[in-house]
Amino acid sequence: MEKQGDAMNAFNFLTQDRVKEPGTGITMMLDKGTGPKMLEDLLEISGEHVDLAKFGWCTSAVYNEEIVKTKVESYKAHGVVPYPGGTLFEVAYTQNKLEEFLNEADKLGFEAIEISDGSVDIPLEARDEVIQNVKDNGFMVITEVGKKDPQKDGEYTTQERVELIEHDINMGAYKVLIEAREGGKGIGIYDNAGNVKKDDVQRIADSIDVKNVIWEAPQKNQQVYLILKFGANVNLGNIPPEEIISLETMRRGLRGDTLGKVNL
Amino acid sequence: MEKQGDAMNAFNFLTQDRVKEPGTGITMMLDKGTGPKMLEDLLEISGEHVDLAKFGWCTSAVYNEEIVKTKVESYKAHGVVPYPGGTLFEVAYTQNKLEEFLNEADKLGFEAIEISDGSVDIPLEARDEVIQNVKDNGFMVITEVGKKDPQKDGEYTTQERVELIEHDINMGAYKVLIEAREGGKGIGIYDNAGNVKKDDVQRIADSIDVKNVIWEAPQKNQQVYLILKFGANVNLGNIPPEEIISLETMRRGLRGDTLGKVNL
Amino acid sequence: MEKQGDAMNAFNFLTQDRVKEPGTGITMMLDKGTGPKMLEDLLEISGEHVDLAKFGWCTSAVYNEEIVKTKVESYKAHGVVPYPGGTLFEVAYTQNKLEEFLNEADKLGFEAIEISDGSVDIPLEARDEVIQNVKDNGFMVITEVGKKDPQKDGEYTTQERVELIEHDINMGAYKVLIEAREGGKGIGIYDNAGNVKKDDVQRIADSIDVKNVIWEAPQKNQQVYLILKFGANVNLGNIPPEEIISLETMRRGLRGDTLGKVNL
Repeated sequence: MEKQGDAMNAFNFLTQDRVKEPGTGITMMLDKGTGPKMLEDLLEISGEHVDLAKFGWCTSAVYNEEIVKTKVESYKAHGVVPYPGGTLFEVAYTQNKLEEFLNEADKLGFEAIEISDGSVDIPLEARDEVIQNVKDNGFMVITEVGKKDPQKDGEYTTQERVELIEHDINMGAYKVLIEAREGGKGIGIYDNAGNVKKDDVQRIADSIDVKNVIWEAPQKNQQVYLILKFGANVNLGNIPPEEIISLETMRRGLRGDTLGKVNL
Repeated sequence: MEKQGDAMNAFNFLTQDRVKEPGTGITMMLDKGTGPKMLEDLLEISGEHVDLAKFGWCTSAVYNEEIVKTKVESYKAHGVVPYPGGTLFEVAYTQNKLEEFLNEADKLGFEAIEISDGSVDIPLEARDEVIQNVKDNGFMVITEVGKKDPQKDGEYTTQERVELIEHDINMGAYKVLIEAREGGKGIGIYDNAGNVKKDDVQRIADSIDVKNVIWEAPQKNQQVYLILKFGANVNLGNIPPEEIISLETMRRGLRGDTLGKVNL
Repeated sequence: MEKQGDAMNAFNFLTQDRVKEPGTGITMMLDKGTGPKMLEDLLEISGEHVDLAKFGWCTSAVYNEEIVKTKVESYKAHGVVPYPGGTLFEVAYTQNKLEEFLNEADKLGFEAIEISDGSVDIPLEARDEVIQNVKDNGFMVITEVGKKDPQKDGEYTTQERVELIEHDINMGAYKVLIEAREGGKGIGIYDNAGNVKKDDVQRIADSIDVKNVIWEAPQKNQQVYLILKFGANVNLGNIPPEEIISLETMRRGLRGDTLGKVNL
């Protein structure tokens, strides 16, 4: 479905449409088990502002497949691309069941796959084979850079992250996620309190085209920082469902934190 | 709709009805983009305990006007007075579109308007003109005292707040909100950890009739403190939708924190 | 209703069913006023993984009895045992209205009762009489050990807790809850930041059969700790509704925190 813009929004004479170049301004929502009717209700009010939806980690594997299908259809009807979380891919990879995993994903209606190594180790060569394989099966590829374990993640240098981001984009990934988990604390570009490590962000921004990444930013202070630094159309992910509307207002300068500070 | 009291509540032989004088015991809920069906469901279970509902900041401007109308109708059918957030008023004021703003609010079914200066500066004389204008257009006026930016808010003395509260009430405001934002941290009567600055509360209470204010109190510890200090019928605002039932139990001494400590 | 297992789950070739001995692997959800339609939607997607549902403290006493009945029926239709919170029992006990309380609970469809002394003092002899009385009225008995007030709770020794747990089980309680409240901070086995007091957990585990208790564990770090220490089928309680799916993935090693670290 095409996103409609805000011609039919309330108070639209006070606001400006957010004009996005393709591949920018992406909002990725984290679905950690939203019920099917509540999801439909959420998408009715805010689906316009969602581009991607991650069925977090292996959540899609602990409920009825008919509900997964219903939710996938809801997302697609609202112009959102849903995909299973990277941990589920990692489980399939570890069990040598990548083909079955892709078949099931296809059967359920998913059109994108996340490839990550947050919990398992995958040699670069194997990563490349997987990316190619997933692409060959007709899926959009989204990769992720970062480790779930804060200690392991801390051993990862910014330089290594940057190199892997470039590598994945060159391999044909649509976007690369910068891991922050659901909590956004003590991992990637966030310290233990969830504050942004500004130097790390700057180093990444100095080395790559930021359009290629989606910053996982589950907390409001993180979203505000990244919007003020990179603009209304920075790509943001792991947004909790109930924060979609809030994020959209912040992108457009329609909340105190960003009012008068963003250009559309 | 008239609120019905709890004659039909479960276990009503164990509880006492909360008797409120007009203008006291107000619960104001913060709606930051609740879906229309989820809202109806929430109001079915807890609408009895809600008096005002704020469509937070500019959230009502980023979704379809038909959904805004549907939600406004739901609120009114449950005896709740809904109104657009103060930031939206500030955007309209800054753009010199107050008339259009009030017309649109009326068309959408709103019967109250919040007038704030959380993000912009409004001279006192202009504030008075606006209050009068909004009243003349038939709306209930709710004003807010406080700044969104913690640093600017910190420069605001308690004495200045008290004077503005009295001023607004004299101008005909129904109630004055004490700003705490959605988070309730580092602003107004709350420190950076969300703890209540008790001396500031006392100074305000010494200077005004507390019935005239609604304390924004998004966090549980804040609600408990204000109930224990001012009683079951203290006016509280920015209550998250999922906390309405909890707040009502605390007001009535039906939760450990206030059990045996409030009079009804 | 019988729980169905996960034969019909998506991606079930990647996961293992969680095999539970009776009385183990229990998940108790905290319902603090979920709307009836939202509850039905939640149970459709995750009811399979819920065993008990507590209508927290006195929340069931501040909304319409027809809604309580509807929710009780929803729970039972999904194989979940719902029960009113311990504070409501304490209110009835204090008012000398235990018989009326049990009659009303029965009329509303509840089949279990929680007996606690979190906010009031109940002598051991009276506690025993109540347990016997509730059992004689045909209810399943769940008791709770701990005080709502952190200071009073802090005066409670682990040895005293252990003795009361054993006492209640000997009196016929189905399970004993270890109090942590909704927040899980500064109470029972958790410090003020919500971290697990590991020595206290160990002392309890050394003295009793842990199958007899349900650890209230509202926060994710608490759930992870207890799963890693006691296994996939540790009994956990006060799980927020939106965390049921997440908890189930963690029990099964399907989230980074527990991946490869639990046996099923």
